This record gives sequence, C-alpha cells and structure tokens, in this order.
Amino acid sequence: MKRYFLLLLLFSSLALADDQAATASMLRDKALDSTKGWDIVESLTTEVGPRLAGTDADKRAVRWARALLEQSRDAGAFDKVWLEPVSFPIWQRHREQARVVSPYPQPLTITALGYSGSTDGEISAEVIAFPNLASLQAADEKLVAGKIVFINQPMFRDREGAGYAEVVPNRYAAGSVAKEKGAVAALIRSAGTDSHRFPHSGASTREDDPLPAAALSAPDAEQLQRILDRGETLTVALDINVSEQPGGESYNVIAQIDGRVDAKKVVLIAAHLDSWDLGTGAIDDGAGVAITVAAAQLIGELPQRPKHSVRMVLFANEEQGIWGAKAYAEQHKDELKNHLFASESDFGAGPVWRFDSANEALMNKAMPHLAALSIEKGGEASSAGPDITPLLEAGVPIFQLQQDGIDYFDYHHTADDTLDKIDAKDLQQNIAAWAVVTFLAAEDLGSE
Amino acid sequence: MKRYFLLLLLFSSLALADDQAATASMLRDKALDSTKGWDIVESLTTEVGPRLAGTDADKRAVRWARALLEQSRDAGAFDKVWLEPVSFPIWQRHREQARVVSPYPQPLTITALGYSGSTDGEISAEVIAFPNLASLQAADEKLVAGKIVFINQPMFRDREGAGYAEVVPNRYAAGSVAKEKGAVAALIRSAGTDSHRFPHSGASTREDDPLPAAALSAPDAEQLQRILDRGETLTVALDINVSEQPGGESYNVIAQIDGRVDAKKVVLIAAHLDSWDLGTGAIDDGAGVAITVAAAQLIGELPQRPKHSVRMVLFANEEQGIWGAKAYAEQHKDELKNHLFASESDFGAGPVWRFDSANEALMNKAMPHLAALSIEKGGEASSAGPDITPLLEAGVPIFQLQQDGIDYFDYHHTADDTLDKIDAKDLQQNIAAWAVVTFLAAEDLGSE
Repeated sequence: MKRYFLLLLLFSSLALADDQAATASMLRDKALDSTKGWDIVESLTTEVGPRLAGTDADKRAVRWARALLEQSRDAGAFDKVWLEPVSFPIWQRHREQARVVSPYPQPLTITALGYSGSTDGEISAEVIAFPNLASLQAADEKLVAGKIVFINQPMFRDREGAGYAEVVPNRYAAGSVAKEKGAVAALIRSAGTDSHRFPHSGASTREDDPLPAAALSAPDAEQLQRILDRGETLTVALDINVSEQPGGESYNVIAQIDGRVDAKKVVLIAAHLDSWDLGTGAIDDGAGVAITVAAAQLIGELPQRPKHSVRMVLFANEEQGIWGAKAYAEQHKDELKNHLFASESDFGAGPVWRFDSANEALMNKAMPHLAALSIEKGGEASSAGPDITPLLEAGVPIFQLQQDGIDYFDYHHTADDTLDKIDAKDLQQNIAAWAVVTFLAAEDLGSE
Repeated sequence: MKRYFLLLLLFSSLALADDQAATASMLRDKALDSTKGWDIVESLTTEVGPRLAGTDADKRAVRWARALLEQSRDAGAFDKVWLEPVSFPIWQRHREQARVVSPYPQPLTITALGYSGSTDGEISAEVIAFPNLASLQAADEKLVAGKIVFINQPMFRDREGAGYAEVVPNRYAAGSVAKEKGAVAALIRSAGTDSHRFPHSGASTREDDPLPAAALSAPDAEQLQRILDRGETLTVALDINVSEQPGGESYNVIAQIDGRVDAKKVVLIAAHLDSWDLGTGAIDDGAGVAITVAAAQLIGELPQRPKHSVRMVLFANEEQGIWGAKAYAEQHKDELKNHLFASESDFGAGPVWRFDSANEALMNKAMPHLAALSIEKGGEASSAGPDITPLLEAGVPIFQLQQDGIDYFDYHHTADDTLDKIDAKDLQQNIAAWAVVTFLAAEDLGSE
C-alpha cells in the first residue's frame, strides 16, 4: 500500500514536470510568434512619448498603463489591477545652452543633469579639466574656485555595460564635489558609448542649492579637450534654467495573476514606466514595459493559473532615484517574505544571452527552454534591475535575464532613445525568456 | 640627321614620362605618410567650428584660410594667395521649436531650411501628409489650405548618394509649393539616411516672403506618420524664427602654384569653406578643404613647378546656392578657356573608389598610380562637385575622384557633422589621389 502510494506520487510528480515543461515550451513559442510586445512599446512611445516623472506626460503614461492592464484583466489575463501612489519632487528642464566664449566662439551641445541647479541667466567662466572624479576630488581648491569644472572621462563599450559603473559617479557627484571646491558649475562628458552629438541626461545626487551641472555630448567633450590641449585658456558660457518643486505624485501601476494554490506568494516582475524627457523612452524603459507586460499576459492567458501569483509592477520615477521602488518596498515590507522572486527588465531591447539565478531548481527547469533561445546558463544573479535593489536588500531572491547591452549606452538617456532603436525579433526573444522563467518561478519548484 | 632627331625626341619624351610617373608615385607615397590633411581639418573644425556664410564665424574662417595659405606661400608651396569678394544675403536661424499639440502632446526635433520664413510666434495647424513632392503638387488646394504640409519621403542609402537626388527636391520646393496651395508651413522628412534624432538642414529655393519650412529628423517623421496612420487628426505647433538681411560678404580664398611653362593655363581644384551652422562642417566640407589644400601643398613642395598652374579655390557660400562659384565663373569668364580642368572635393571624407575623366591621356597616366589606392577606372565624369557646375556649363573640362559616400548622408547638414566622423587614413588616401591627378593634369598630357 505504502509502496503503491509512493509510485503514484512519483508518477504524478513526473507528469507535473512534463506538464510544466510542455507549458513552458508553448509559452516560449507563442511569445516568438506574438506582436504583443511590439504593439505595447509602439503604443507607449507614440501615444505618450517622453514621460518625465511628475509631469502631465507621466500622468498620461499612468492612464495608458492602467487602461492597458485593465483591458487585459477584463479579457481574463489578470485578476486585479491597482495603483499605489508615489511622492517625489518634480524636477524639470526649461532651457540649457552652452557656448565657447573664447578662444574659438562656437555653440556646444549640453543637457542638464537631473537635480542640477540653474545658472540664473548666462554665466561664463574659465574651464578646468579633470580626467576623472578622483582627480577633481584631489584638486587644490584654489585652482578650482570660480571655474567651470569639466570631467572628460570616456566610457568603454561592452555587452554588460560595465563601463557605466566607472563613469556614472561623475554624473552623480561632479556638481557636489565642484561646489565644495568653489566652482561655479560642472560639466561632464556624457556617460555614453556613442560618438554622436547627443548629450546623455541622468540623475545627479539630489542636494540643497545644487550647482548647475550638465553633460556634454562626446564630440563636444572632445572639442573642448582639443582646445585645452592647445594650452589655451578656455572660457565657456552656460545658461541653464531648471526647476524643482515639491508635490510630485505618480503611481506604481500593478497587475496580478493570482496563484491557484497560494496567491499570497508572488513572483514579481517589473519595468519602469517613467522616462527621461529627451527621447520617447523606447529602450529605457518602454522595452521593459513591453517585455514584462507581454510575458505576464501570455502566462495569464494559460488555461490554468500558476501555483503562485505573478505580480507585474510598472514602477514610478525610476530615473530620478527609484522613488517608486522605494515606496513599494516600504509599503509591502511585511509581505516581502512572500516574494518568491523579483526581477526587472531595464537594460534596453537587446537579446537575452545569459540566465542567472542562485536557485538550482529554477535554473534546471528553465535552461532547456532558454538554450533554444541562445541563452547561456550563468551563475548567481548579482542584481536584477535598479528597481529591485530595495527588495534585494530586504532579502527577496532574484533572477536575472541578462541582455546584450552592447549599444544600450549609445542611446540611453538621449533624445535618440526612440522606437526605431528596437528590433521586434529581439523583443520577442526577451518576452519568450521572461514568460518561461516567470511561469516556472511561479510554479512548483519542488524536486524533479 | 632627321632620324637621329626623332630618336632623341622619343627618348626625351619617354624620360619625361618616366619622370612624371616617378613624381606621381612619390607624391602618392608622401600623401599616404603625411598628417597635413588631418592637421588642416582638425584646425578648421576646432578653431573656427561652424561657419555659416556671412556670419562672424565665416569671417574667421576666411582669416583662418588666408593665414594657412599665406604660410604655405611663404614656405614656397604657393606663388600667390588672394581673396575675391562674394556678396549674398545673410540668412540665419534664431529659434526653431515644434511640438505635437494633439492628440499626443510631445516635442518634435526640427531644423529650419535655409531661406525658410518665420512663423512670427508659435502657430499651430492640422498636418496633411504626402509621400513625395509630386503628390503635394497634385493635391487639391482645398485640402491643403490652412494646414501644415508634411512630406514623408525616406532616402535610400548608396555609395554614390543617388538617393539624394530623389529627395532633395522636397527640400528645395516644399515651402513654395505648399505656399501656392495656401498651406501655413511645410515640414519635410530630412534628406538623410540615418535613423538618429538629427534633422538635416540645407537650402530651399530662395523666394520673396517664404513660408516657414523645416526638416524633421527621421525618427520624428516616423512618429508623425504613426499618429496619422491611426487615423487621428494631428495638430502640430511650430515656432520658427529666422532672418534674412542684405549685405552679406565673404571671399573665395585662392592660392596658386604658377605653371613653369604657361602660368595662364590652370588646373582648378576646389572645396568650399563655408558650412551649415549646426555641426562643425567636418565632412562638409572641412574634409574637402583638407584634401585639396594638402594635395596642392604637396605639389607645391616639389623641386619643380608643374608645366601649368594649379589653382586651389576655397569657395564662399556653397551651401546657400553656390554664391562663390557663380561669382568666380563671372569674374573669370574670359579666362575660362585657359582652365584645363576643374574639380571639387565635396562629398565627405570617405575613400575615393573611382576616377572619372573623358581625357584618355590623363586617365592612362593616372590609373597606374590610382590602382594602388584601390581606385577603379571609370568613364566620363558627369559632375565634379556643386561649385564646379558653373565652370562645367561654361565648357571647362572636369575630372572626378568619386568618393564612397555610403554614410555621407548620415551626417550631412546635421549637428553631428564633427571631426570624429573623419578617418585619418581615408583622408590620406584622398589626398594621395588628388595630388597624383592634379599633378598629372597640370603636367604635359601629350602622347606618351
């Protein structure tokens, strides 16, 4: 009797594993054949366009997302859709102009960094250049005081975007360090890998009474360097008008597929809904919105709910300091123990090439399906998107579908982040990978 | 005695041919090893930068060119350097902004076309789209009146820039045809091959009381098309402020190597000194300035002057309608019979891949040297650069060193036309080809 029972358990477990595998394969194939993702990012970038957190455009984005998800809910793909408020200051750019005053008068292309201050009319000052932040930090105040600081550090290109970590501290801290040393403004070479006339925006560290701080396009940074290399005294004029006002509000837009066995246990997949104001936020992060929404929809269209819940979160105001993600982690802190996994798609629209997870059962179940998508088996995931950081710090397990970001930092935070930079086939590959992994993560991961 | 004389003539002729060939080879090798060209375009784009005809920057460009050529003259490479005045109206842009008003409010990236009119504050109107100029020309006035015309014709990419001829009529005539039909403004998809957020400027046909006319970047044109494809009524607001004033003056800057046998007979090689105002005029036409000046310098540094003169002309105001070239043709009309050849380098910095000339003797003498530069033998030259058109029409023989322009229209007339787009090795290859052909054209082309 006991032996018979065990045999039955073994068979049903094998059958379950077979079912899971068949469903995962089917999800993958449906994703590779679906225009869901493209339709979503096409709609968001066209009908909303740029959506800086706290602006009217951001409000339109929230309405757009809510309508999309509620429509899916009404069609049966989600069980509930809701909004959670997020508060933050509204930072906006109004004017940003720069020019070489002497020795060779000519315009420069700049963009103010998020949380930059204003110049209050045009200011002009001598430029002092540094190869990196450390050399500015080490500089004698007497040399820096009254000048415009210029950090000219190129970013190297690689698939994982490793160069970004080297140069992004310039963006965060150039203004504050320059201010400490008595400078009147800070310029950085854009944190980007392109050689086009696009400055890359992005947040700097928010502080009281910030210095005006802006990014130059790479060709403009090289132009200034050529002038300085001649031993010339370089004077630049800046006219930066930005504003910060309190009372910004937006929403984390959330849709959930309730688990059939334990709905309180959730697999959280995410993207962020806001974008910088210069482009239409196609690769950052319209692609992520499309990938995670489409993957969740495909799972929600299965004849049966997965064992645990799939929660799809479109975070508010990632760009200016993961405001939505912090609000979520705070608001849900008592439920985080029920978050089985969390992961965000926020690295553009390039194909996934590696799957990282410390969970061997998930890895083993997913890899046969992912291998067919040319995705390699990785190791433990070290991060899973900026908005997942607060969850990771609170102990939520993560997985990562690492995308090829070889050209991500060509477009990131520029006016050139537009729909034409997305390859529809790559988007499908992403959705296939997310659908497979999310489904399996939400299913039973018991021993095989 | 007679037979002996003929034999002597034959030997000296062969020796001369041998000398010519050796000199041509030496010129080629020197050019491939020289930084002259790079130094020139680096200096022009850095120390002058954008140089719109008639502006202070254009005056600085003329001073820069004169100083460069006079220094070469003082070093013995040229025999004389002079300026010839050119008059034209000064057209300038002051403000150019556009946005979608409805149904999906968002900013657009535009640039006013040369000789565009102003909007006199912000105007807004419904957009009516056409696939090309012919369809606008055929359109019913009642449909067009009061609207903003939008011509959305993509340009195809090819090595010879053949796609440009298809779309550039849109730039020239969209404003005037739209005006005839009662439109309030004209927008065109940029005459360019890139998919970046750079609108391409360029001249439109100058007329009295012109309509405001501007180019959209390709991604912006596609964005408008996507909105229109939804069947939506699209309203766009434009704020274009430009000015035209009389009394513009600039100069054709000319340097000459006097021929050792007949200085009145000249081989004219050219580039244009002015640029549009958005970029630093690196590929258009800093590269041509560098190529032709460096080639002429190399010839001027030979121990012996060529038989006929080499005249190097840097034309004024090519961009707004070959004003300098027309002035030259008029001023020198009585000497054009002494112009043996004329050619301009004004197609970027890509390598030369084909040599065209109707002159078989020049072709036969040049090809052995050009073949080593991976340059093919072509046929009769049909054009030799925009500034040569008036000379061609007056019967001056031309040759053409056809460059690979596969990416020329990615950058042409945009803010992205900067020094980093030039490959120093390709520049050397151009200079080598120009030095060889110009030298041989100025030498005796008698039977070999």
